[in-house]
Amino acid sequence: MSATNQVFIAVIGVGGVGKCFLNQLRALAARKPSPKLSLCYISNSRKAVYSPDYAPIDFPTAIETLASSAQAPPALAQLIDYLAAAPAKAVLVDNTSSQDVADAYPLALSRGVSVVTPNKKAFSGSYKLWQDVFAAAASSGAKVFHESTVGAGLPVISTIKDLVETGDRVTKIEGVFSGTMSFLFNSFAPTEGQGGKWSDEVKKAKALGYTEPDPRDDLNGLDVARKLTILARLAGLPVESPTSFPVQSLIPKELESCSSGDEFLEKLSAFDQQMDDLKAEADKNGKVVRFVGSIDVATQQIRVGLEQFDRSHPIAALKGSDNIISFRTERYSNSPLIIQGSGAGGDVTAMGVTGDLVKLVAQIA
Amino acid sequence: MSATNQVFIAVIGVGGVGKCFLNQLRALAARKPSPKLSLCYISNSRKAVYSPDYAPIDFPTAIETLASSAQAPPALAQLIDYLAAAPAKAVLVDNTSSQDVADAYPLALSRGVSVVTPNKKAFSGSYKLWQDVFAAAASSGAKVFHESTVGAGLPVISTIKDLVETGDRVTKIEGVFSGTMSFLFNSFAPTEGQGGKWSDEVKKAKALGYTEPDPRDDLNGLDVARKLTILARLAGLPVESPTSFPVQSLIPKELESCSSGDEFLEKLSAFDQQMDDLKAEADKNGKVVRFVGSIDVATQQIRVGLEQFDRSHPIAALKGSDNIISFRTERYSNSPLIIQGSGAGGDVTAMGVTGDLVKLVAQIA
Repeated sequence: MSATNQVFIAVIGVGGVGKCFLNQLRALAARKPSPKLSLCYISNSRKAVYSPDYAPIDFPTAIETLASSAQAPPALAQLIDYLAAAPAKAVLVDNTSSQDVADAYPLALSRGVSVVTPNKKAFSGSYKLWQDVFAAAASSGAKVFHESTVGAGLPVISTIKDLVETGDRVTKIEGVFSGTMSFLFNSFAPTEGQGGKWSDEVKKAKALGYTEPDPRDDLNGLDVARKLTILARLAGLPVESPTSFPVQSLIPKELESCSSGDEFLEKLSAFDQQMDDLKAEADKNGKVVRFVGSIDVATQQIRVGLEQFDRSHPIAALKGSDNIISFRTERYSNSPLIIQGSGAGGDVTAMGVTGDLVKLVAQIA
Repeated sequence: MSATNQVFIAVIGVGGVGKCFLNQLRALAARKPSPKLSLCYISNSRKAVYSPDYAPIDFPTAIETLASSAQAPPALAQLIDYLAAAPAKAVLVDNTSSQDVADAYPLALSRGVSVVTPNKKAFSGSYKLWQDVFAAAASSGAKVFHESTVGAGLPVISTIKDLVETGDRVTKIEGVFSGTMSFLFNSFAPTEGQGGKWSDEVKKAKALGYTEPDPRDDLNGLDVARKLTILARLAGLPVESPTSFPVQSLIPKELESCSSGDEFLEKLSAFDQQMDDLKAEADKNGKVVRFVGSIDVATQQIRVGLEQFDRSHPIAALKGSDNIISFRTERYSNSPLIIQGSGAGGDVTAMGVTGDLVKLVAQIA
């Protein structure tokens, strides 16, 4: 237990998730006065707020303070120096999706700075970075928590960790891991009724804010591949990278080179027939098509792509933009352990981050 | 962090769950040499093994050592003295379902001894005991973990705690909370096919070891009422006791006074027509009947009993003896957060206990 019973928190990234996180953090700090959570750094890509004496930045006005700051963010190595020298334990909360920030986790952890993040990059990139992250944490005793890297605030990472830590063996993981893909297929190929044209559903999803600015960043399957990489590694498979197993892209070859998401969306309707054919083929089997990921631990097979499911299957029956993740293990062998619910959105993603911070603080403060 | 980086563990109860827990603990201690988990006490209702110098009891042979012990278990107050005086942090693992042991948690916690348990009694009994438990923990800094009190190893308690701690508001909890009731209704009123006679299904469940020795201890609904009491309290409702809200018993009035479970089972078939009528009534509505519990936080209404569900509803579609627990909250308002899977059995129940111990040790060692 640190002498001051205080934890210093540095927040990088104040986008959708970052803003929700700051709101939750503020409520948390008000409710749980001890240990004292002290915001000593906040930054976006252009600005930062911090001071040599680690003066606490007021939670309620942190965003405004940042907006009016004249300081530029320091280099990451410099930020880590700053946090490692703090007069009590420090936590880096990375609410970005930046590879550069992820690459700095091993340095931060090796210097005793813990990391909490929804950023998938460090856990789903090269296997070497994964190893470096956990080796650095093991050597210094600093902790790294990343619940929101899969299924947002759903208890997915904590569950697979509990299974493995208590000696269970995961045999199969399967599910719908993308809120965007979930929404698209639940609307395009509903279990009841006809569903819309594929290109219309993609446009609708974008209008609702369910896709990345360029929808191809969802349709290429890489986001799902990253999540499966993380889960497979936690289940014990040394997956080299998210491109080291088959990933089906839903971007027609001809549209890969479109210069913008808008151009892509304009031209997508020309490929509606292809998607209708897939839907009709599934329908002929009494099934519906869904975009899923699966990991077979024994055969080390990981797959991401379209599969057909009975209409009564939990994966087919999913609603809205929900995720569903099913674990089969030695203990959960007759029927799987299933976790289901909203897997995207600022508040539920931030909840995973805030929950991680609560657990981390209980361990280090 | 304790000077010795050691945690002393006392285990009360070596029945089905206790044996599985000891196996998991042994594997865990072998895999994670630091912090050193040291078994310093083990007992069943008649015997105990412990020594004044806290000499470690060998994990692999602990059960045999206990069987050949000539020591009687000490009084609980004396056991707590022993643990409070240990040269490092101590944890009491209560694998019994004893009210007496549960009543001793406040004393243990106030003396700095943490508690890990699947025993529901302390959390689902009087509201005063609940308050005493958490007040004692708060005052001393000792911790109390009880994941397996609801849904066995399924991450139910940790999830509702995460939701509440991060500032979410639970609005409704609903589900199938009893593996026994799940099995009975999935067989008696399956979504497809006819299902068996009620009394035959109860006999089959008992033969499979899915019921208590006297099946009335499952059919009276009290086990489900206890689980709902725990969840309701964690959601913020000051529930007085598990009998302070309506609980439907499936024991016919005329059979309440049977002197044994066997006599009850013999006479139960005379009441099959009543259950068939319930099934037929649901069928007329295109539904099936299930034994569920629900908590409406806003109206403070808690109910346990039979309800009808569409055949496509996740509660109707449950398999085997699975539990399903659905949380609606402010954040998970469009669709609920759902956790589903096996909710009974030695290994999955012990997993919740072992998982709690891992988390506890990370906090106190």
